[in-house]
Amino acid sequence: MSQQRSEETRQRIMEAAANRFGSTGYAAASVDDICAEAGVSKGAFYHHFPSKQSLFLALMNAWLNLIDLGMEGFRKDTVPETLVEMTNLLPGVFAAAEDRLPMFLEFWLQASRDKKVWKAIIAPYHHYQEHFAKLVEEGIAEGSLKPVDPQVAAQVIVSLAVGLVLQGVLEPRRTDWPRLAGQSMQLLMNGLAKKG
Amino acid sequence: MSQQRSEETRQRIMEAAANRFGSTGYAAASVDDICAEAGVSKGAFYHHFPSKQSLFLALMNAWLNLIDLGMEGFRKDTVPETLVEMTNLLPGVFAAAEDRLPMFLEFWLQASRDKKVWKAIIAPYHHYQEHFAKLVEEGIAEGSLKPVDPQVAAQVIVSLAVGLVLQGVLEPRRTDWPRLAGQSMQLLMNGLAKKG
Repeated sequence: MSQQRSEETRQRIMEAAANRFGSTGYAAASVDDICAEAGVSKGAFYHHFPSKQSLFLALMNAWLNLIDLGMEGFRKDTVPETLVEMTNLLPGVFAAAEDRLPMFLEFWLQASRDKKVWKAIIAPYHHYQEHFAKLVEEGIAEGSLKPVDPQVAAQVIVSLAVGLVLQGVLEPRRTDWPRLAGQSMQLLMNGLAKKG
Repeated sequence: MSQQRSEETRQRIMEAAANRFGSTGYAAASVDDICAEAGVSKGAFYHHFPSKQSLFLALMNAWLNLIDLGMEGFRKDTVPETLVEMTNLLPGVFAAAEDRLPMFLEFWLQASRDKKVWKAIIAPYHHYQEHFAKLVEEGIAEGSLKPVDPQVAAQVIVSLAVGLVLQGVLEPRRTDWPRLAGQSMQLLMNGLAKKG
């Protein structure tokens, strides 16, 4: 089996698993079902994934890595510009998330029941948190941000993003979510209260 | 059966259902299991709830009404004060949410699969959104808030709250979430960017 064909098989298994987990739930989706939908043998399946759980974690990491990849290299002149324009990455996140809400909810549900999944799902959030805290520190150093607590500011940014993505996948047609995310970040930069 | 005993039975069923849905999931929890855990007959069960789904929706509404109740009457001198001090209601929300994460995830999972549950879960979010939009309008009118778009500001507040609650129930011991929520709201009021 060539490297390329092997990678294609792996991708097909992950695609089929995302569909099955999403439509019938993690527990009800059997390895047999996933193999049938992917059109691969059980031998091929276990060549790529030692267990259904490892496949599940691979799916989760693929999506989180996608976000990471877009975020890490993104840098504009100033930190406020970086934060506001970073929301332009969201259409890609939403497109990748479309019809995948049940799948994401399964991630969290499994995480709430399984320590191993929980650790795997929590790690990237801490990573995002640290990424934004560093960015805020840079903003303070360059003089574009107020001397706020970087950890609190990072938490606000991460919470806002989590809340927007959750509502966006739940009600995709309600509004232009990426645009709203940009306006939200701008609002966070400017503040709401009038200086008294 | 007296009114009071009937209400106690209803509460016992809801308590048992929350436990079963949380531990084994919505699909796997049977009416028989719930009756056994609550110590009630099937007749009593169906007297209170025509179906497992109606019980599920009742559970969801009970929690959402709790939030509503705290929010509606809450008012301080100015809107910024109202918003920041409203986060003091969060310890109650978190206490009610403790160990209930799988249950909430089941709400969303069912909502993603069932139009009726979806409508029931979406309605209170629109309601929160409108509540905060009205509050922001009042803040602009009283001169304590900048003339921002009330719908955008409300969406930021709701998203921030959703993100904080989600992370708080997932990782309760990571930080003092209600305190962080207060700091977050204050940050949203003040803004991050230095006026250039």
